[in-house]
Amino acid sequence: MRAVTIVEGELLWNEHPDPVPGPGQVVVAVAAAGINGADMLQRKGFYPAPPGSPADIPGLEFSGTVLANGDGAVRFATGDRVMAICGGGGQAEQVVVPESHLLPVPDGVDLVHAGGFPEAFSTAQDALFTQADLSEGHSVLISGAAGGVGTAAVQLAAVAGARVVATVRNPDHHEAVRTLGADVVALPDAVAEHGPYDVSLELVGAPGVEAVLPHLTTGARIVVIGVGAGAKAQVNLLAVMGARATIGGSTLRARSTEEKAGVAWLVEARAVRLFGEGAVKVPVADTFPMADATAAYERFAAGGKLGKVVLVTG
Amino acid sequence: MRAVTIVEGELLWNEHPDPVPGPGQVVVAVAAAGINGADMLQRKGFYPAPPGSPADIPGLEFSGTVLANGDGAVRFATGDRVMAICGGGGQAEQVVVPESHLLPVPDGVDLVHAGGFPEAFSTAQDALFTQADLSEGHSVLISGAAGGVGTAAVQLAAVAGARVVATVRNPDHHEAVRTLGADVVALPDAVAEHGPYDVSLELVGAPGVEAVLPHLTTGARIVVIGVGAGAKAQVNLLAVMGARATIGGSTLRARSTEEKAGVAWLVEARAVRLFGEGAVKVPVADTFPMADATAAYERFAAGGKLGKVVLVTG
Repeated sequence: MRAVTIVEGELLWNEHPDPVPGPGQVVVAVAAAGINGADMLQRKGFYPAPPGSPADIPGLEFSGTVLANGDGAVRFATGDRVMAICGGGGQAEQVVVPESHLLPVPDGVDLVHAGGFPEAFSTAQDALFTQADLSEGHSVLISGAAGGVGTAAVQLAAVAGARVVATVRNPDHHEAVRTLGADVVALPDAVAEHGPYDVSLELVGAPGVEAVLPHLTTGARIVVIGVGAGAKAQVNLLAVMGARATIGGSTLRARSTEEKAGVAWLVEARAVRLFGEGAVKVPVADTFPMADATAAYERFAAGGKLGKVVLVTG
Repeated sequence: MRAVTIVEGELLWNEHPDPVPGPGQVVVAVAAAGINGADMLQRKGFYPAPPGSPADIPGLEFSGTVLANGDGAVRFATGDRVMAICGGGGQAEQVVVPESHLLPVPDGVDLVHAGGFPEAFSTAQDALFTQADLSEGHSVLISGAAGGVGTAAVQLAAVAGARVVATVRNPDHHEAVRTLGADVVALPDAVAEHGPYDVSLELVGAPGVEAVLPHLTTGARIVVIGVGAGAKAQVNLLAVMGARATIGGSTLRARSTEEKAGVAWLVEARAVRLFGEGAVKVPVADTFPMADATAAYERFAAGGKLGKVVLVTG
């Protein structure tokens, strides 16, 4: 098979041995694979793939059809449409993952959009509901809402009945993010005007954490998912104590196989169901053939886009 | 009645009207009242008393005997030994509080030690168990463990079966804190050697938060209760995300009457029970008559003590 391959910082489209499914694993013929911020870091030599994932093939998510089941993998038949997050290796013609990480692609959803679903929606659902305990009636701030995780989070929070305040740097995307369900879409410097917030999903980094701290309700939760604008935050602990707030954060990638299976189970029950009902969608900013990964990564890194950049095979 | 009274930063022993119990309230004849860091702040004009508490009488905790019940207050009889946290006004001959905030003083415990119990043990129990979900087998760091909350936390955590690492600046108190149940007592700069930590109870402030961040287990909780050494922490959000940690904090004083009743209910079931069994105790560093509050506050502010400074009446 061929795969996007990181060779000294360049993205090549190289031959690799076909993956072989071990016990409980499934090989998927990849149709599409979304690009994520972590791919940019991995290309530069930061954020290496976890043990068990290919070191030189990027890609944290994919969609496709089942090619082969390993011993004991019985849920899906050959040809079934599936999608998943993976520790790496998604940007290839084939990928092998534990069966427990696979999500069914709902009928009526095409594989290109499905290829941009797993990472953004798993991250957003885990952060909003598992970590931050968001529920109806809460006020939630989503900072940097035009990207993959942001657009997923706006939709999931709106469907859950929260009041969604989204910050988006590019005014051209404000109307589109409003259409996804945000009650308020504002520039990042307007955080103070639209609070206070029960939950803050921070996709930008340190400046966002510092900005929201004075505008929290009692018991508020800040969950940090992205630090593109800086990781070193100046935190006033008296503000944290005064609000009885918590500042937390997480990545999916570092979690164990078992934990990822648990996340997939929760995501199938909520976000995948909503995806099948048409209640949430994957905004796709652009698609590129896998062989053109270099151009696709440039498009991703340029920013200012709405939603996902997705690589496609064949 | 007479009460410690803040007049332009001075502590006088002045006459005030006797408090009258409203519905559901109880007037207590105070026997003893512990001093807390918040009293120092209130004396300087910071940290004003919450609505409903006397503005000029300090004191966040007390012990004593019931003098009078208001309408509907039926749990305690006149003369019963009780203790409680209060929004202020504890350092007086009489104080009035909601019945729901009162804790019974266990048989065999004297009122002087009981006067130093409520604030430290309620704060420590709420932080360790309600906020940080400490349980047996966890490793907990208690930073600044020689003070009132610290000595309470060391004991509660040790009784709960946690591995307790305590930092204490004054080497003279290391042996005493070990006797309270700490597995390790170290100087503050030795935090790295004894980790990683599932829970960090931060009683010192920003330097402690910064020191413990690289030494957390997955899913660790930092709970900030004191900021005497600084409130502005430089927080590496990548470290928070990497550990899937949370940084939180709280004060008891700002909570509603109903929330304080909930805390009292939990404290009676755990810390008060242990107090009665002799499994935890209140180390008292020094006692002073209420009329000598100025000297007592100086003793408190000088630091370097083990346990509580307690004011006593007549």
